[in-house]
Amino acid sequence: MSPSAKRRSATDQVSDLIASRLSIYLRCLSALDSTGVPKISSSALAHQFHLNAAQIRKDLAYFGEFGVRGVGYSVPELRRHLRGILGLDRQINVAIVGAGNLGLALADYPGFRQEGFNIVALFDTLAGKVGERSRGGVPIHDVKELRRVVTRNKISIGVIAVPASAAQLVANTIVSSGIRAILNFSPGSLSVPAGVKLKNADLTVSLESLSFFLARGNEG
Amino acid sequence: MSPSAKRRSATDQVSDLIASRLSIYLRCLSALDSTGVPKISSSALAHQFHLNAAQIRKDLAYFGEFGVRGVGYSVPELRRHLRGILGLDRQINVAIVGAGNLGLALADYPGFRQEGFNIVALFDTLAGKVGERSRGGVPIHDVKELRRVVTRNKISIGVIAVPASAAQLVANTIVSSGIRAILNFSPGSLSVPAGVKLKNADLTVSLESLSFFLARGNEG
Repeated sequence: MSPSAKRRSATDQVSDLIASRLSIYLRCLSALDSTGVPKISSSALAHQFHLNAAQIRKDLAYFGEFGVRGVGYSVPELRRHLRGILGLDRQINVAIVGAGNLGLALADYPGFRQEGFNIVALFDTLAGKVGERSRGGVPIHDVKELRRVVTRNKISIGVIAVPASAAQLVANTIVSSGIRAILNFSPGSLSVPAGVKLKNADLTVSLESLSFFLARGNEG
Repeated sequence: MSPSAKRRSATDQVSDLIASRLSIYLRCLSALDSTGVPKISSSALAHQFHLNAAQIRKDLAYFGEFGVRGVGYSVPELRRHLRGILGLDRQINVAIVGAGNLGLALADYPGFRQEGFNIVALFDTLAGKVGERSRGGVPIHDVKELRRVVTRNKISIGVIAVPASAAQLVANTIVSSGIRAILNFSPGSLSVPAGVKLKNADLTVSLESLSFFLARGNEG
């Protein structure tokens, strides 16, 4: 691996960790905002949601000066800033390739729309699926139309929801359509060119954390 | 919140982080094992998979002495140990409540079976679904049968794949069936009694990490 490629992936990892923490802070602030809490200190935020206060201050300081010492953060203001940092202050159009059970479930997943992600298109190859819609109304296009639909709808994120055997081919097709950010739900690893961000949504990790809990619990 | 409840959730968080890292190490070792690599040092493991060598040594040391200084870890042996620590050395039976698109997709998700999770039952309330099977052959039972099926099949993990409005009721039903570990795919927060482990699979966090990448990239 070249030094620049290595540096790039180390930076990628750091970015992923920061982004995950910012997502968590955003969820906490949204919960506070919905109950009308106007201000909160980093230590109260940490205490209430079982986070690390020093880490919160460090993560937020990295993106500018938000809080006032001794007063804390304005909840709605920090929430707005975090949405901006996470790029959620504009509409993000998303395409899902694979209109099987997983693709259809993701297309209508209510959490995505709540956070500003707009699932605009599904893609498949099966004649029986193309031309239909998900229950929530997302149209299913032929995967041959990917490039055209991506350009027309300004789609910036592609989701892979096809069997593992087809996943690399789909990843290549998504990349060639001009999309630079991919979320992969297929098990196994994919390769994408430099400059394209690939995120694996490994559903098994969550189950393993429960299995770990059960294994520890049975010892005690 | 009582001091003991606070202590419990701090411990929970630490466990979650360790479990996630062990899952990642296991994936790396499985990849090495499948290509026939017999031994690896913590620093080579860290370098190859962009991990932190000191963290690897610390995490593994917590569960006993595995490596030999200057020689490294035996790949198949450490893999076996990690599977044991994660509780993957025995069959884990899983039930999924909700036989909509998401539940059906999860029931047939190939990654689960590969790691030793055995999806033995789906549950729903709709007459048109009960009595049917997923494409992969998982039977769909009436949710009224949950307790009986859980006991008969020694099910230890319950997965919630129902709309948010039904999620808390389903969580209560799962808990009363005797299951102590729950993976929740429904957006929003649920409460479970002490002694039950609830893990939220928040699919939106992965999309937000991509959005963050795109927002940063557009600045550069």
